Amino acid sequence: MYLAHIDFDALIREDVPYFDLTGYELGLDHEPARIAAFTREDCIVCGTEEAREIFRRLGIETLDYKYSGTKALAGEELIVGKGEATQVLTAWKVIQNLIDHTSGIATKTRHFVDAVHAVNPNIPVLTTRKMFSGTKALAVKAIMAGGALPHRLGLSETILIFDQHIHLLGGFDNLLQKLPQLKNNCCEKKILIEASDSAKALAALRAGADGIQLEKLSPDEINKISSVIREQFPNAILLAAGGIRPDNISQYATLDIDGIVTTSLYSAAPIDVGVKITALPSL
Amino acid sequence: MYLAHIDFDALIREDVPYFDLTGYELGLDHEPARIAAFTREDCIVCGTEEAREIFRRLGIETLDYKYSGTKALAGEELIVGKGEATQVLTAWKVIQNLIDHTSGIATKTRHFVDAVHAVNPNIPVLTTRKMFSGTKALAVKAIMAGGALPHRLGLSETILIFDQHIHLLGGFDNLLQKLPQLKNNCCEKKILIEASDSAKALAALRAGADGIQLEKLSPDEINKISSVIREQFPNAILLAAGGIRPDNISQYATLDIDGIVTTSLYSAAPIDVGVKITALPSL
Amino acid sequence: MYLAHIDFDALIREDVPYFDLTGYELGLDHEPARIAAFTREDCIVCGTEEAREIFRRLGIETLDYKYSGTKALAGEELIVGKGEATQVLTAWKVIQNLIDHTSGIATKTRHFVDAVHAVNPNIPVLTTRKMFSGTKALAVKAIMAGGALPHRLGLSETILIFDQHIHLLGGFDNLLQKLPQLKNNCCEKKILIEASDSAKALAALRAGADGIQLEKLSPDEINKISSVIREQFPNAILLAAGGIRPDNISQYATLDIDGIVTTSLYSAAPIDVGVKITALPSL
Amino acid sequence: MYLAHIDFDALIREDVPYFDLTGYELGLDHEPARIAAFTREDCIVCGTEEAREIFRRLGIETLDYKYSGTKALAGEELIVGKGEATQVLTAWKVIQNLIDHTSGIATKTRHFVDAVHAVNPNIPVLTTRKMFSGTKALAVKAIMAGGALPHRLGLSETILIFDQHIHLLGGFDNLLQKLPQLKNNCCEKKILIEASDSAKALAALRAGADGIQLEKLSPDEINKISSVIREQFPNAILLAAGGIRPDNISQYATLDIDGIVTTSLYSAAPIDVGVKITALPSL
Amino acid sequence: MYLAHIDFDALIREDVPYFDLTGYELGLDHEPARIAAFTREDCIVCGTEEAREIFRRLGIETLDYKYSGTKALAGEELIVGKGEATQVLTAWKVIQNLIDHTSGIATKTRHFVDAVHAVNPNIPVLTTRKMFSGTKALAVKAIMAGGALPHRLGLSETILIFDQHIHLLGGFDNLLQKLPQLKNNCCEKKILIEASDSAKALAALRAGADGIQLEKLSPDEINKISSVIREQFPNAILLAAGGIRPDNISQYATLDIDGIVTTSLYSAAPIDVGVKITALPSL
Amino acid sequence: MYLAHIDFDALIREDVPYFDLTGYELGLDHEPARIAAFTREDCIVCGTEEAREIFRRLGIETLDYKYSGTKALAGEELIVGKGEATQVLTAWKVIQNLIDHTSGIATKTRHFVDAVHAVNPNIPVLTTRKMFSGTKALAVKAIMAGGALPHRLGLSETILIFDQHIHLLGGFDNLLQKLPQLKNNCCEKKILIEASDSAKALAALRAGADGIQLEKLSPDEINKISSVIREQFPNAILLAAGGIRPDNISQYATLDIDGIVTTSLYSAAPIDVGVKITALPSL
Repeated sequence: MYLAHIDFDALIREDVPYFDLTGYELGLDHEPARIAAFTREDCIVCGTEEAREIFRRLGIETLDYKYSGTKALAGEELIVGKGEATQVLTAWKVIQNLIDHTSGIATKTRHFVDAVHAVNPNIPVLTTRKMFSGTKALAVKAIMAGGALPHRLGLSETILIFDQHIHLLGGFDNLLQKLPQLKNNCCEKKILIEASDSAKALAALRAGADGIQLEKLSPDEINKISSVIREQFPNAILLAAGGIRPDNISQYATLDIDGIVTTSLYSAAPIDVGVKITALPSL
Repeated sequence: MYLAHIDFDALIREDVPYFDLTGYELGLDHEPARIAAFTREDCIVCGTEEAREIFRRLGIETLDYKYSGTKALAGEELIVGKGEATQVLTAWKVIQNLIDHTSGIATKTRHFVDAVHAVNPNIPVLTTRKMFSGTKALAVKAIMAGGALPHRLGLSETILIFDQHIHLLGGFDNLLQKLPQLKNNCCEKKILIEASDSAKALAALRAGADGIQLEKLSPDEINKISSVIREQFPNAILLAAGGIRPDNISQYATLDIDGIVTTSLYSAAPIDVGVKITALPSL
Repeated sequence: MYLAHIDFDALIREDVPYFDLTGYELGLDHEPARIAAFTREDCIVCGTEEAREIFRRLGIETLDYKYSGTKALAGEELIVGKGEATQVLTAWKVIQNLIDHTSGIATKTRHFVDAVHAVNPNIPVLTTRKMFSGTKALAVKAIMAGGALPHRLGLSETILIFDQHIHLLGGFDNLLQKLPQLKNNCCEKKILIEASDSAKALAALRAGADGIQLEKLSPDEINKISSVIREQFPNAILLAAGGIRPDNISQYATLDIDGIVTTSLYSAAPIDVGVKITALPSL
Repeated sequence: MYLAHIDFDALIREDVPYFDLTGYELGLDHEPARIAAFTREDCIVCGTEEAREIFRRLGIETLDYKYSGTKALAGEELIVGKGEATQVLTAWKVIQNLIDHTSGIATKTRHFVDAVHAVNPNIPVLTTRKMFSGTKALAVKAIMAGGALPHRLGLSETILIFDQHIHLLGGFDNLLQKLPQLKNNCCEKKILIEASDSAKALAALRAGADGIQLEKLSPDEINKISSVIREQFPNAILLAAGGIRPDNISQYATLDIDGIVTTSLYSAAPIDVGVKITALPSL
Repeated sequence: MYLAHIDFDALIREDVPYFDLTGYELGLDHEPARIAAFTREDCIVCGTEEAREIFRRLGIETLDYKYSGTKALAGEELIVGKGEATQVLTAWKVIQNLIDHTSGIATKTRHFVDAVHAVNPNIPVLTTRKMFSGTKALAVKAIMAGGALPHRLGLSETILIFDQHIHLLGGFDNLLQKLPQLKNNCCEKKILIEASDSAKALAALRAGADGIQLEKLSPDEINKISSVIREQFPNAILLAAGGIRPDNISQYATLDIDGIVTTSLYSAAPIDVGVKITALPSL
Repeated sequence: MYLAHIDFDALIREDVPYFDLTGYELGLDHEPARIAAFTREDCIVCGTEEAREIFRRLGIETLDYKYSGTKALAGEELIVGKGEATQVLTAWKVIQNLIDHTSGIATKTRHFVDAVHAVNPNIPVLTTRKMFSGTKALAVKAIMAGGALPHRLGLSETILIFDQHIHLLGGFDNLLQKLPQLKNNCCEKKILIEASDSAKALAALRAGADGIQLEKLSPDEINKISSVIREQFPNAILLAAGGIRPDNISQYATLDIDGIVTTSLYSAAPIDVGVKITALPSL
């Protein structure tokens, strides 16, 4: 998988603003050392390309690593490097934090995606913009490593109309009037509207919307609305969003919808990743 | 509380790299609007000083906000602003992600701290360096808003000796020989060593260490080791670390220790924060 | 219009890395001065919000300015400020370069859009990713101020399949096999393919593509292909791209297409913008 | 030629903020690929050192490239690389935009310089500070690749007195009084003044100026003024500036001047550069 | 004086990466406080504009300050602000380091300049590029506040030929051949050459150089060389450089030279600046 | 020693914002050249790892270098590289400024440390936070290369109570009341208080402080206070700080203290480092 565009030097400084005081005072310096991150539980690997880049910036040679998106079993090494003791101590927690958090998200995502696809392999899992501030590059890579896709990366690229827009417009009727022109201008994009009742959804589709994001509805409620919509707009894009989590996903997966949108995958417990550091014979 | 040193412009660009396409195509521009973030559940507030700074950079006037570290009840507004429609739409998710994630950590931390202090008000809760890469500034503020303190901010400031250092040194005996000089050099700092058995702990304390980080031990195991240590070193700093979580914290809080070190608080579900946006009469 | 996310401090340093040596040696310092950028030709204004931000960072008070996207006649002032002589001299060329280049693009775009809409008001003008490296934020704002929209902001947000992808896939047939799954995964997005003959276009549409970007074809060629496509796929999105410029746009505007994609608007002569600087009476 | 100091990572993110969605969904990943940028028209090459640096950051090996400042014929390859499919797709438009825009400026500049030197090989072509905001590093390299030099890089390094300074000083007489001291202080630098009439020019030279920038004058007007000046100040530096473009340059080149200052070279149509991407056999 | 272009946020983070732990633990937070930096010795003030910008970023109101370049007597306050306790504690050492170091340089420079001008008011003091890495913006402002000017800000703006260039060219004769063309190309700039004997200096001047930087010579040696040069080139620019310090400056000031170039001013003991912080009555 | 986390590209741009004009105009470009920095005086080397990184970024191969912290004799080469003429000219002053300033600090520090240890090898030398703004990363490495340690890197990591805190708290008694809780919360850290009389020191130690920073006292005064303190608190950490310089250090070294804190080492004259550049035969 691609290397995430993150500020690698900032990540190193975040944990080691100047030097490792403990190692420095213990006299650890140029001695060759081996560093290996391994998992203590089965997981979908993520963050190893980024760990490798951390190694590269610290002069640590990467001897082996597993690609993001692949599966690792408990006990397996995820990345192994060789470098000077002082650099290896610097890399330690930086790569551990990269790998355990992103692999946690990737693993949770893979389980979620598998649960959906066990019911309906044609429903993609899409993730919202609601990740922890500053983590978008890593969080997006992690959910992709797990088999999901980002719903939208930011506000500048897609049309998704929320109630907040409608309030600013002065009401739903004003929106309906504007939709045809908007659809025309943005001919390359699908027009999606958040709605939670079929009347509003149908009016929007009639005015030219391509799809509806059904927000915070139970499976039953979605079922009712989608059957009403499908009757008139069999090709409308229907997304279920809001409150969909691992514990209720199998119900949503049975619905007649085109995609599932969830925030829940970003809050994943980190995988239990350990780091072994050992001295190597001097060259 | 203090304003976290984060890259505010980068956070805005993370969600709105250029403009809000939906609002732009709907013709929303200079019209005055009100924006308010509110909580749907009781929480310890965090991230509002940062949200206010986001407002400032977008020309949105902050009308009111609650300080980080204070308590808010379900339904309460956390920050309220007034600005142009296009700027308010830009701020929306940026502040929501800031507030809901940091308040989630702060709230979880406060419960954890309360659980400890209910048993022993003299044990501080300390958090590790194992947060998601790139979130340290916000994560540290959040646990402080909840009443904890960071155990160590990075490698350059404290002495904490791990097995990985000992491996590189070529064994524990080599460490013991180096400790007196290290203690001397770093006279302003306490020397801490990670250990999980009393023999090693006692040897380190005899060689001059100030404290022991007891790693991945059960409450019973800690109990045994700490009583042995206290006999000889009544003032040694004893920290319990590894595997301490909300579900077992009350057991650890009963121990004869000086601090509890935990990673668990960084993985907190975001607080359910909503954002209301409404049109204001033109000036 | 929105303020472009650019590095304002870098723009100031680009022209004034330390100080204005000429003004410094002439003893110009805290004396109050007026600065006004005016146009010597009719134009669509752009860059004034950014000029205002430059003023703000230099402690210059903005007394008046015209919004980006509005029309200005030769002789009109576009932005007027008041500040210390040394700051006004620093701002001078920084704001001039911002305004004259972006207004040049905006003005050229408006003429182009007007030429299209005079023939067919339903065809939007879309601009490519081929701007001068590093200018995307300003160039995109400028074409929007002129009435166009960016075709795609970058590679991460849209599906547009080029011959280069097809070469890497090992041929067009391999692409056709992958399209249904791709369409399914990216249910929120339209799938577009670059093509220059109707056979390829029809095959792609049959396999699920939503539209065709007709690349480097004459109006006549597009006419023939589009009539073939429309027969079978009346709702397919058809874009004309490649070689479309102000001098041939009126021919393309008569075609049965949904959008016109052009690079030509980024290469616009700057508007002739002058800057008047005059002393103000001391306070 | 030297590598321009630009933010290479920002240029990559400008076009590919996260990943290439199209390539990702088509399953293009680690497969080896060849990428070559070639020109469809004769040109002076520029931007290839920067393209090579882009390749380096994306792990693409540069197999061959032509130096900036050299000439290329239509059909020639300018840079050729080899790397993973996903990285090659990322590099594509980034290097294309770098090369086609800078080569456009370099080529226009070379023609302009050749036109001047055909008449008088001793007149250098100098370019102003009026490039598009944020492009100075690339634009300066491009005009140098074409044989020109920057007139002044910024305000901190040279003395060039404009009417705006004189207004702030309260008039030309005040300037004349300050010139001797200024000349003394800045003994390493030449003192230049913008003027458009011979009286002002002569007064400035008498007060110690080293040269005159003759602003927005016709060749005839310059001819008259320069002969007056040369009579008294044969070694004064005389620069012609303002309104000098490819279509009138040969007239200006015949004048008795020391340099020609122009903005016109920054607005150059990009060279038509194509990018070929092809699969390579797996290793 | 102008505000130096430095990274103010980085300076704050350099001293306070997260928060002031001492103040936080003492419960100091929103209480209003007064902060004043004062000097314990007579000095030329510098860095106060930058200190004021630090105040601004921390929400501290500047109540009063003395401009850079002015004189302050022992005991005088240089800048006074008012803000929240936690912000005032954050600003403390940041502004102290800014003011004491730059004022140290400015004061040393003023004494040096005064010593030169007492002998010959027409010799400017110029400073080299040999400051501590990363301090150029502040160091340049400081020497200017003291009355000197930077000799050259960097390599891109001036022509100064060193022996190192001559070695690369393959000898002095090669240089002499290239000088006429170089002089022609860079008609706006003076051509300076480093030399330490009159033969080389005269040859260079004959070939078109405008001046000589006389490097590491005693006053006597310079006297001899300059009288030889002046005979033939009365207007040549002669600079004395290398080894000129406060303790020998009065000898150099008597020479027939146009400027004195020195590195010595950058190594100045900081002025003894104290910071008073006091509580203010709550509002 | 570790590589300091500094902005290497910014250091290059600081001296060479675009290119070396002199070398460019002399036609120096791809020719191979050798560059060597050597010292003209005995010194403790510092900054060579950073110089090597500068070389790496400019494509200069490092042939040899001496580690930071080692001793070099007058005449010895500190780092030697090989690269293109234009890159070698770019690197020249950048590495010279890095090495001469940091080696100056390292050498002064080593002499200072040696002077202390000649009297008492158990007293570490600690340096304050009072370095020139923006130089902390290099200055800290330099004092470490000389054998000192930073007293505290910033405000977020240690507890050190100054009079300024006490003023904000409303008096010393308020501090005493807060100390036990503070000590408890920060169990991993030593609590230090600045004091200059024994009454205050004893009260603070009784309330739980671990040590006293004795500020601006003469050796005699410290002697008196320390003997009083030691009587009651034999293990209290006693630091001498304020006004301790090379000329009085041997007196302070005889005292019964645990550490010496000084600012004086940051103001060190640069080592006289020269740079030889010579042409190499073409490959």
